[in-house]
Amino acid sequence: MDEFDLIQRFFAMQPLRRPDVSLGIGDDAAVLRVPDGQELVASVDSLVAGVHFIETMDAEAVGHRALAVNLSDLAAMGAEPAWALLALSLPAADEGWLAGFARGFFALAGRYSVALVGGNTVRGPLSITVTVHGFVPRGMAITRAGARPGDHIYVTGESGAAAAGLRCWQEQGMRDPDDVLLRRFLRPEPRVPAGLALRGIASAAIDVSDGFTADLGHILVASGAGANVSLESLPLAAAAVERFGRETALRMALSSGDDYELCFTVPPQRLALFETRRRTLDCAATHIGEINATRKLRCVRQDGSDWAESAAGYKHF
Amino acid sequence: MDEFDLIQRFFAMQPLRRPDVSLGIGDDAAVLRVPDGQELVASVDSLVAGVHFIETMDAEAVGHRALAVNLSDLAAMGAEPAWALLALSLPAADEGWLAGFARGFFALAGRYSVALVGGNTVRGPLSITVTVHGFVPRGMAITRAGARPGDHIYVTGESGAAAAGLRCWQEQGMRDPDDVLLRRFLRPEPRVPAGLALRGIASAAIDVSDGFTADLGHILVASGAGANVSLESLPLAAAAVERFGRETALRMALSSGDDYELCFTVPPQRLALFETRRRTLDCAATHIGEINATRKLRCVRQDGSDWAESAAGYKHF
Repeated sequence: MDEFDLIQRFFAMQPLRRPDVSLGIGDDAAVLRVPDGQELVASVDSLVAGVHFIETMDAEAVGHRALAVNLSDLAAMGAEPAWALLALSLPAADEGWLAGFARGFFALAGRYSVALVGGNTVRGPLSITVTVHGFVPRGMAITRAGARPGDHIYVTGESGAAAAGLRCWQEQGMRDPDDVLLRRFLRPEPRVPAGLALRGIASAAIDVSDGFTADLGHILVASGAGANVSLESLPLAAAAVERFGRETALRMALSSGDDYELCFTVPPQRLALFETRRRTLDCAATHIGEINATRKLRCVRQDGSDWAESAAGYKHF
Repeated sequence: MDEFDLIQRFFAMQPLRRPDVSLGIGDDAAVLRVPDGQELVASVDSLVAGVHFIETMDAEAVGHRALAVNLSDLAAMGAEPAWALLALSLPAADEGWLAGFARGFFALAGRYSVALVGGNTVRGPLSITVTVHGFVPRGMAITRAGARPGDHIYVTGESGAAAAGLRCWQEQGMRDPDDVLLRRFLRPEPRVPAGLALRGIASAAIDVSDGFTADLGHILVASGAGANVSLESLPLAAAAVERFGRETALRMALSSGDDYELCFTVPPQRLALFETRRRTLDCAATHIGEINATRKLRCVRQDGSDWAESAAGYKHF
């Protein structure tokens, strides 16, 4: 089985057809049409075996996760997903693994109408690089740089679940893919509907991939601002608190990554509009603090003391 | 030094600014504008150390090559290069290697006005995945599927040089980066001007990355056609013939990859127009045969005998 067979058997068979794909997989490049009035939003992310996932993890979950972490970047920009390109490096042409990977990838792609339009398969250490493309009306992309003093800070869903799930795998031998915490690590849900609902409302947004303090920190640096966050308000995953205690769950949420929730800011004058759109977010959004002009991130406990640990988050090197 | 420092230090510093980049590196995704009336052409390719290049090769050449093989795909579609995203997997944050890689990458990017708009750096085995984007006027992309019986077959430049250069490295200890053959492996020249000149002329095109017979074979399969090729006409690299003999040089050209020349077909009624545009190709183009209806590829020697070896080309698995 050579590269061409592999790609064709598993990746040229997806049922989804989009009218904006003039030419999909199988030529030197894809030919695509961006709708009039829309900007193209593009991002790339890699998952390396042994670094971002564990080689023995279910291939279907790896397929889901490889696309999910990329769709999460589109969500953070307020973009509507459209197309993906997939570069796979595989130690061997393992049909079973590929079939599982394709199942997980295409199940998620189908839910958000993402067409796989290009692929490249090489022999090498197991890693997956996905490039995703989406659309946003011109000038409507939500960046990290728009937060201003007085803006309210929100986070979607629950925090700390993915880090807790990974720890359950690593330290407790948990292998049940439907476990409430492990599932959040294996199959993170990109907040695509929330990103779309936040167009014209959020002044800044980011997806929480490196840990809450690191990612909110990116908004603060890009916006030239500071923030005050109430740790009591942070919506910790109940199962993480139950299994590891509140203090550990809080540390996981603040300094471990992989939740892929959105952290975003809303200016005071748009709060009323935000409330009317809440139900279209398709998930909870919790108010956790305010942007200020200090250029510092202060995380305050219930008793008024500061969270003293380093706000480093996940270090890639 | 963490991911953010790495990316910022080497990749956010490129001098090139394009007006169609609304938001470049540094946010969750890039925001880009495709000009009115143009289609987006997108492709992804990976280079893995030990498979597609040798770890001890000059980082500057690796940077050039990682972008060149991708621009070659755009050239084969007749697309004008515009943007690139770079996913790097590195075993360590080696500043010297990164500086060299960035030098090679940006030197080539600058020549074709390609803006690096997104990046992702992870710790892992050395590999590079580049996604490139270009433009083509709507409906003008050159695919693999348009060759028809009677069309003339051409190949740009010279064949076999890259495979000969790699063999010089591997078997003869050649390390001179300016050696006429080694250079063709280390720094292939994407045929971007040729691809642009062939818009409205070529009925089909492909870049020769897997070996001439394999790649022409892709055109034949996609077009449902066959071909007759005169091996005597194939423009072998003179230095390859000189060092390895004509028979070996011919085998390298036919069944080894990495030349990144364009193989394309021209219908008889466009031959006159093609001749008037020859000088804009920016390289030689040699007539080597004709498309026919046989659905077979026949490569004929000077004495009338068939080239008997397998037309497999480079197998990725």
